[in-house]
Amino acid sequence: MEDAFDGPFLGILGGMGPLASATLMTRLTQLTPAETDQAHIPAILWSDPRIPDRPAAYLRQGEDPFPWMLNGIRRLEAAGAKIIVIPCNTAHLWYDALAAQARVPIIHIVDAVVQNLQAQGVPHGRVGLMATSATLQSGLYQSRLSAHGYECLVPEPEEIGRHCSIPIALTKQGHLEEARRAASPGVASLCDRGVQAIVLGCTELPLALPHAMRGSWEVPIVDSIDALAHAAIHWHRRQTGKRKPDD
Amino acid sequence: MEDAFDGPFLGILGGMGPLASATLMTRLTQLTPAETDQAHIPAILWSDPRIPDRPAAYLRQGEDPFPWMLNGIRRLEAAGAKIIVIPCNTAHLWYDALAAQARVPIIHIVDAVVQNLQAQGVPHGRVGLMATSATLQSGLYQSRLSAHGYECLVPEPEEIGRHCSIPIALTKQGHLEEARRAASPGVASLCDRGVQAIVLGCTELPLALPHAMRGSWEVPIVDSIDALAHAAIHWHRRQTGKRKPDD
Repeated sequence: MEDAFDGPFLGILGGMGPLASATLMTRLTQLTPAETDQAHIPAILWSDPRIPDRPAAYLRQGEDPFPWMLNGIRRLEAAGAKIIVIPCNTAHLWYDALAAQARVPIIHIVDAVVQNLQAQGVPHGRVGLMATSATLQSGLYQSRLSAHGYECLVPEPEEIGRHCSIPIALTKQGHLEEARRAASPGVASLCDRGVQAIVLGCTELPLALPHAMRGSWEVPIVDSIDALAHAAIHWHRRQTGKRKPDD
Repeated sequence: MEDAFDGPFLGILGGMGPLASATLMTRLTQLTPAETDQAHIPAILWSDPRIPDRPAAYLRQGEDPFPWMLNGIRRLEAAGAKIIVIPCNTAHLWYDALAAQARVPIIHIVDAVVQNLQAQGVPHGRVGLMATSATLQSGLYQSRLSAHGYECLVPEPEEIGRHCSIPIALTKQGHLEEARRAASPGVASLCDRGVQAIVLGCTELPLALPHAMRGSWEVPIVDSIDALAHAAIHWHRRQTGKRKPDD
């Protein structure tokens, strides 16, 4: 393709779900300090909601999403993406296999969450995790958080469906108010167990628990969509040599 | 690329501005009737906010955006887009030149707005238009609306800056509340002149005048972002043979 238009393009492997991808695009724009269009980050979103369900596949009940995700990576590379983010936590169960075949770096969502925990003043300690059953069972977060000095508390087995899986499914159906009512007690329950932060480790959960309501909780909320946006903005700043005023 | 993953992909030539593109992705998801991720529309967003300013170029005060937009079209085609929408009204001043070179159809934003006026129960009559100076001066809307039996009222010359250009610039800077305060009197002023609908003919204006506040106005608001989303959903339904319950 025409090199004259090349640039520091962020690639987004999305559609898992499509509202989470759209929200990442919005948050990326809102969190980027820019006074004009031209100061924003060039981005390519591959939103393929046909990618088979990740939790079902991990639990060996559905079609393998890997070839679909690798196809998206290839399309993003061909279109000119220089780095890739995947706004779906459960998709990261295939991270190692995707990263091994990708020709550009892929930011790991848990690494982005760790950076955001640190940025929100929680450098170590006990954190509560809400996510899909597959993400919780796999230890995806637990192992990476442990390596950074965090202890990871997950909802009690009988609470996972009620406080995580159900609000995630409601969000995918567009029922955000019902999703909020189902997910909120999950946050409260983890807070009661003495966590120093809550990680929304599924990209549907930040949609169910919007920023406007987070001030009422006693601990910081680390949102895996915002964490990816911050990581992408940090990457872009390094590419373009821009520095924050406080760097 | 791998044909196995081909499908009815919607291409979005975006970044003009990036928040308008992100909002189109959100509205496309919200307006699509779907209970699972897999029922949503596959989409590719090329968001290149570096594309030179469209109003400035039309008024011969800036770099030509055409080669940048054509580059985006080419990337979307190569990635597999089967149809393209452009969530920027002023970019449509280059529509004929882009459509002449594109290998896939491009939905014209004013055609989408006309369909939405009809769907909102305004099949003809007097409509008020808010847009950039360039879009207003060019007659982009006036000629197409006139061909469909509408009379197009635009703000008085001394009001265009205050009620259109300023809120558009404020939106691009992320100051949505100030943008709302600047744009609202523009709607009221057009209503006072006896219009049957208001067309938000710049994709920043729907962000400044959100859905939650539109119920208080006496006429329907036709939002060029939502109009494009509806047109894309209609196209996708035809591709996949899905019918609405009331078709």
